[in-house]
Amino acid sequence: MNTEAFFKITYGLYIVSSGNGSKKSGYIANTAFQVTAEPPQIAIACNKDNYTSGLIQESKAFSISILKQEASPEIIGKFGYKTGKVINKFEGTTFLTGITGTPIVTDESIAWFECKVVNKFDVGSHIIYVGEIIENDLLEADGEPLTYDYYRNEKKGKAPKNAPTYIKPENEKTESKTFSTKDLGPKYQCMVCDHIYDPAEGDPDGGIAPGTPFEDIPDDWICPVCGAEKADFEIME
Amino acid sequence: MNTEAFFKITYGLYIVSSGNGSKKSGYIANTAFQVTAEPPQIAIACNKDNYTSGLIQESKAFSISILKQEASPEIIGKFGYKTGKVINKFEGTTFLTGITGTPIVTDESIAWFECKVVNKFDVGSHIIYVGEIIENDLLEADGEPLTYDYYRNEKKGKAPKNAPTYIKPENEKTESKTFSTKDLGPKYQCMVCDHIYDPAEGDPDGGIAPGTPFEDIPDDWICPVCGAEKADFEIME
Repeated sequence: MNTEAFFKITYGLYIVSSGNGSKKSGYIANTAFQVTAEPPQIAIACNKDNYTSGLIQESKAFSISILKQEASPEIIGKFGYKTGKVINKFEGTTFLTGITGTPIVTDESIAWFECKVVNKFDVGSHIIYVGEIIENDLLEADGEPLTYDYYRNEKKGKAPKNAPTYIKPENEKTESKTFSTKDLGPKYQCMVCDHIYDPAEGDPDGGIAPGTPFEDIPDDWICPVCGAEKADFEIME
Repeated sequence: MNTEAFFKITYGLYIVSSGNGSKKSGYIANTAFQVTAEPPQIAIACNKDNYTSGLIQESKAFSISILKQEASPEIIGKFGYKTGKVINKFEGTTFLTGITGTPIVTDESIAWFECKVVNKFDVGSHIIYVGEIIENDLLEADGEPLTYDYYRNEKKGKAPKNAPTYIKPENEKTESKTFSTKDLGPKYQCMVCDHIYDPAEGDPDGGIAPGTPFEDIPDDWICPVCGAEKADFEIME
């Protein structure tokens, strides 16, 4: 199997939310796609272990928010790499409550769809939920959607373990055990999203110049992929 | 329903093929997406009226070829706007025959997947086929995939009537009844894909300068969206 071929499939990145009242959650999805035009129906593939999956089953509704290209590591970290079992993802997040009672994230999003579940299909590790769109809105007519390709290549993001597109790292660990250079010190890895900080590259978008040893990074720096704190990084030795 | 919001969902463009021996066909799809990682499974949403849909049911196999960004109007026209009931789409097309016997288009493609159907789900006008990937290949490691967004905005393409993302034109006909300018003559519309030739805009990529009346276009000119002939255009009056 050629794993590189999978990266040629085009996806967007979305927040899928569900729940009601105080019990609500959401996750980052790349599989959201229209399956019929009349009536307009959207399908999503959701991991069975995903907390939001249970909420969709209970409430029979979900929403899809289309993330904008400039979406922050904080929102991707909160919805993509943390679980709603432990944290309330809607604390500090701007959202609407739909007709069905489902939450709809409007933060850092350019459009959204509210769906009523009309079908669900078991495909193994994931469930395909088919939702009929009952309401939608365009928030930014000129907004560019965040694509998975942009996320991987520009933001250096990776699919979390329960994504349909997750690929097991094979040689990564071995390769990254080497120091970038002896002077700059070792690489560090984010324990939340597996992003690797390489002192030779730094994090220019985050204000860290190439050539900065990990120790010299300010404590308020965050992981450029998932927004985790500096303390969430571990040395790669 | 805000139809513009639908255009913020990100899709690629693919050729989905199926069949066996002399009975084979394929169509242009924008809905192809991985639904599980282990085993790797891909789902497609296929219109029931689509000739290829019947071939998938019979052969229980299909292939997905990822079109490259520079895919020609000829291949999009052949696979996207014509039916395999009438023409043999594989005549003049380079393809492989997979393990299952299914044809796999390699022309103008950067990667492909061969799938064995393991599930099918009825969602109304369309069927979702879930295929387990049994073979795949990357043809161009640096090739950019054609996205639906690029096709719409750069190539001015539209979804054909049996696509999951088809949107009925509401005001288009009325708007385009007006002449661009009296001197340049009327607009003409492609009867195959609905593309409108506007003399004021011309078709610079096809060698037709802005300001060229339709009558002055050479007879070997083809529709920039679907590759149809000049004779397939009708005056908009």
